[in-house]
Amino acid sequence: MSVYTPVSESQLAAWLKGYSVGAPCAFEPVAAGIENTNYFVTTSQGRYVLTLFERLPAAELPFYLGLMAHLARHGIPCPAPIADLADRYLSELSGKPAALVTRLPGASLERPGAHECAELGGLLARMHLAGRSYRGYLENPRGPKWWRVAAREVRPFLDAARQRQLDDELQLQARHRFAELPRGPVHADLFRDNALFENGRISGVIDFYFAGVDCLLFDVAVCVNDWCLADPASDRRLDETLTRALLGAYAALRPFSLAERAAWPVMLRAAALRFWLSRLRDFHRPRAGALVRVHDPEHFCEVLRLRAGAGSVPWPG
Amino acid sequence: MSVYTPVSESQLAAWLKGYSVGAPCAFEPVAAGIENTNYFVTTSQGRYVLTLFERLPAAELPFYLGLMAHLARHGIPCPAPIADLADRYLSELSGKPAALVTRLPGASLERPGAHECAELGGLLARMHLAGRSYRGYLENPRGPKWWRVAAREVRPFLDAARQRQLDDELQLQARHRFAELPRGPVHADLFRDNALFENGRISGVIDFYFAGVDCLLFDVAVCVNDWCLADPASDRRLDETLTRALLGAYAALRPFSLAERAAWPVMLRAAALRFWLSRLRDFHRPRAGALVRVHDPEHFCEVLRLRAGAGSVPWPG
Repeated sequence: MSVYTPVSESQLAAWLKGYSVGAPCAFEPVAAGIENTNYFVTTSQGRYVLTLFERLPAAELPFYLGLMAHLARHGIPCPAPIADLADRYLSELSGKPAALVTRLPGASLERPGAHECAELGGLLARMHLAGRSYRGYLENPRGPKWWRVAAREVRPFLDAARQRQLDDELQLQARHRFAELPRGPVHADLFRDNALFENGRISGVIDFYFAGVDCLLFDVAVCVNDWCLADPASDRRLDETLTRALLGAYAALRPFSLAERAAWPVMLRAAALRFWLSRLRDFHRPRAGALVRVHDPEHFCEVLRLRAGAGSVPWPG
Repeated sequence: MSVYTPVSESQLAAWLKGYSVGAPCAFEPVAAGIENTNYFVTTSQGRYVLTLFERLPAAELPFYLGLMAHLARHGIPCPAPIADLADRYLSELSGKPAALVTRLPGASLERPGAHECAELGGLLARMHLAGRSYRGYLENPRGPKWWRVAAREVRPFLDAARQRQLDDELQLQARHRFAELPRGPVHADLFRDNALFENGRISGVIDFYFAGVDCLLFDVAVCVNDWCLADPASDRRLDETLTRALLGAYAALRPFSLAERAAWPVMLRAAALRFWLSRLRDFHRPRAGALVRVHDPEHFCEVLRLRAGAGSVPWPG
């Protein structure tokens, strides 16, 4: 359960008077989510998620909420922030910055098939195309600069082989800055648990609080590294059918450039490196009092090792 | 059927490539609506309404679409305009200004009861509160200035008694300018067929193309004159239970001022006058080639006569 800040029913009812969504009729804490406190809120008008921001820098919140609002008004099924009567997406509740967003239908899938990977690929392309007109700017907070900081923090906890793997990967990535690739706002954390499906269609993309401006291809690589594994628990090689389904559906809407095709193998490694580092940090340097479920860092160490191996990277026809 | 401008499936598919809503899978003309051409469009992403604007002044369209977008992002269940890849709500299709908006669930009710009148009253209040932060401005295009123009046009078609009724009403209204009443964006046409219900809850308010800035109380009067009749077909007196339900639910969220309570009887007459005039005009001066279903002007002549009578205006306790 990720509830760091309790909110009472009467606090909620008073706070909702500042909105146009009617009175609350149901209210429950959300178990998922590791960065913020979330509640499901049902009012006479509809279903919402209330988020209290626990540790995201306040200066970054307008970027995330503005991006979600931008994508939602382009028809992307993402949480749409609700503006309050003072016309703000952000207000304050229990001493924390707080936002109300629409709650989307559907449920995430543990083992998506080729059809679902294609759904995700298509939505990702539409999201990237719609995002290009977004005027907010925030450099991906988990980009190359952050990798170097995080690597210094976690390196002492690694054995010699993993230290070498990390050093080699940072050096390889430093030689590839991808300045020529198309950039824009990316979700940057679109794992299976951040996509909702209903009746076989993708019905929602959630949790934009790792979003930032980066290479669009980085977002694709993050997805492929999570959605297209032969077996997420035991075989982290890429399944060729799933990978082709995701990439093919994406490319049908936003064809990859030659530079992107050339960058692909290194980008898959970059995406693996980013999550290896954050999981190492969560594992070895947990936040005090955090109720975060810690993921095994070895998963992404193995993904990175496999992507660095030869001949393992399918690419659509 | 109100389709003035035909659109082919291939035209639609090409036009939708400028949006982020996926490819069309179903497409049908909408029978209702008298000012615009409307199509229901279903894509892989969702359900939408495509509107081609046939005769609304192009300069007014941003006010309407901006208002709908503003209300939607405040949680009001109204059609949300979808922005295209160039980040515009308005584009062009078949030589007409065109917009894509979300399609809302539910169906309108012929005979709303007290529960539904209360639902409508509550939603109207929330819409007025949310609308106050909207920065667009368009004087109600069917306001007092328009009444005088329309009256000159239709007066020659009336018998002597109705000419006198019209002259008297215009004179009475001219003595009441309501400068002291709260104003803001109002729907101004929220008849029963412009509200959708689903499972007993109001699920949508549609057709904002008569909206404008006016007294908020004018909007309430338009609703009461249509929703709260003893019998819409045969007895246009106000049903006291329905009227109290609508006004009470509204006032619980936005209490009426003393000035509004004083203005109420004259405002009910103003709202009846506005629709008597437009129906007279549609009846006696129909547009060439228009497929508009003409409503009987006598309905609002009778509503006006009854509201001008004594003791007929309930007001919540």
